[in-house]
Amino acid sequence: MTNPNSPAVTAALLVIGDEILSGRTKDKNIGYIAEYLTAMGIDLKEVRVVPDDEGEIIAAINTLRAKFTYLLTTGGIGPTHDDITADCVAKALGVEITHDPRAVAMLRERYVNPEDLNEARLRMARIPHGSTLIANSISKAPGFMCGNVIVMAGVPAIMQVMLDEIAPSLAKGRVMASLSVDAGGLPEGAYAAALGAIQKGHEGVIIGSYPHFDGVKFANQIVLRSRDEALLQKVRGEVEAMIVSLKPH
Amino acid sequence: MTNPNSPAVTAALLVIGDEILSGRTKDKNIGYIAEYLTAMGIDLKEVRVVPDDEGEIIAAINTLRAKFTYLLTTGGIGPTHDDITADCVAKALGVEITHDPRAVAMLRERYVNPEDLNEARLRMARIPHGSTLIANSISKAPGFMCGNVIVMAGVPAIMQVMLDEIAPSLAKGRVMASLSVDAGGLPEGAYAAALGAIQKGHEGVIIGSYPHFDGVKFANQIVLRSRDEALLQKVRGEVEAMIVSLKPH
Repeated sequence: MTNPNSPAVTAALLVIGDEILSGRTKDKNIGYIAEYLTAMGIDLKEVRVVPDDEGEIIAAINTLRAKFTYLLTTGGIGPTHDDITADCVAKALGVEITHDPRAVAMLRERYVNPEDLNEARLRMARIPHGSTLIANSISKAPGFMCGNVIVMAGVPAIMQVMLDEIAPSLAKGRVMASLSVDAGGLPEGAYAAALGAIQKGHEGVIIGSYPHFDGVKFANQIVLRSRDEALLQKVRGEVEAMIVSLKPH
Repeated sequence: MTNPNSPAVTAALLVIGDEILSGRTKDKNIGYIAEYLTAMGIDLKEVRVVPDDEGEIIAAINTLRAKFTYLLTTGGIGPTHDDITADCVAKALGVEITHDPRAVAMLRERYVNPEDLNEARLRMARIPHGSTLIANSISKAPGFMCGNVIVMAGVPAIMQVMLDEIAPSLAKGRVMASLSVDAGGLPEGAYAAALGAIQKGHEGVIIGSYPHFDGVKFANQIVLRSRDEALLQKVRGEVEAMIVSLKPH
């Protein structure tokens, strides 16, 4: 599905859950999804974390799905009362939501005994009309894709199998190549002006400078990103020459 | 500054940086700030991550500062060309930004030799007018608070000393008490209906159910949160009784 002439494929991520905002649960999905999409050539352009609040979730869904190629969500698709994501997606998109027979069949694989598939568990088969289901090999309750909204579980292991499941059907962009140049012990302030000049001369490369503090001293990495590999290598050469020229002799 | 009758103190966090969205850097500030604010009785209501893009940063600042008591930001206040947060805050708030003599004095503590305090480093002393500076005991370049916007470094160790510095001056809310009840091996689907009924009966308590998957099986925690300690204990009793009643005998 890659077409180098097509516009960039973009995405936003909406993390749904009080537990992330209270600090009780430390999110592990943002970094994973960011890296995953980048490797597919999809540019993650925005992340939002919102509470388990219908109004907030619906507003965020509608803003983000309109702005980007895809909107991915994590969290809020379990069987308990605080799991309201599927209903919010249906309301946001203005589609009906009912028990989906395909999703019920998936749940039956796990809850073989009919009385175990109670009303609460059946809630996990409530899917907005027009969705593609996303299989869940771990706990069976599926995610789904409705329009350009991809709804996944919040539990990282389950989110990850769902992402593997849906990824092949997504449009892919040209992968943004990326490389790091170690600043060789130079502080940011010593190369900031020269690096800024290199950035100004090369709009096709995104240059970032990232300090890392180990508790005693800083170590800096200069990161170059571009969809033009030749240009990336040219700018790498300029950055490396800059570092050599600025190092004390 | 705590007044139990005053409305809740709320906050949003804006994480600024391409490196988080590309997945190259895994954010460590969201969880830390979430926990920190919760312990102060400040409700973190939303988090956004945006790229190093002036338009996106300004739009997010203006939306979030209008909606919540405080807006905290992390990232983008170093000396390199990709550090544009201070200028974006000034534009968003419609105030001037110039070299602040107090900030220059702070930088002089670190860059004693006058020629080391070059133009790039002096950029870190550009502060929107009307700001309170936030001291940085690690690398000296300060954060600042302008209106209700609190601007901090992205490097976790530096963000943390800045947060310690500014926190005493912030309005505090009544702390939301929180406790976990272990579901004792019960699956979510076994208690979802009963837990939903308990939630319905007690609006003053926020009840969440959080599955944890260890790669083999699920272990669930039911988390209760409230600003009413007596009510919290009453609901804890109901949830514990529910678990006992549902466990196989």
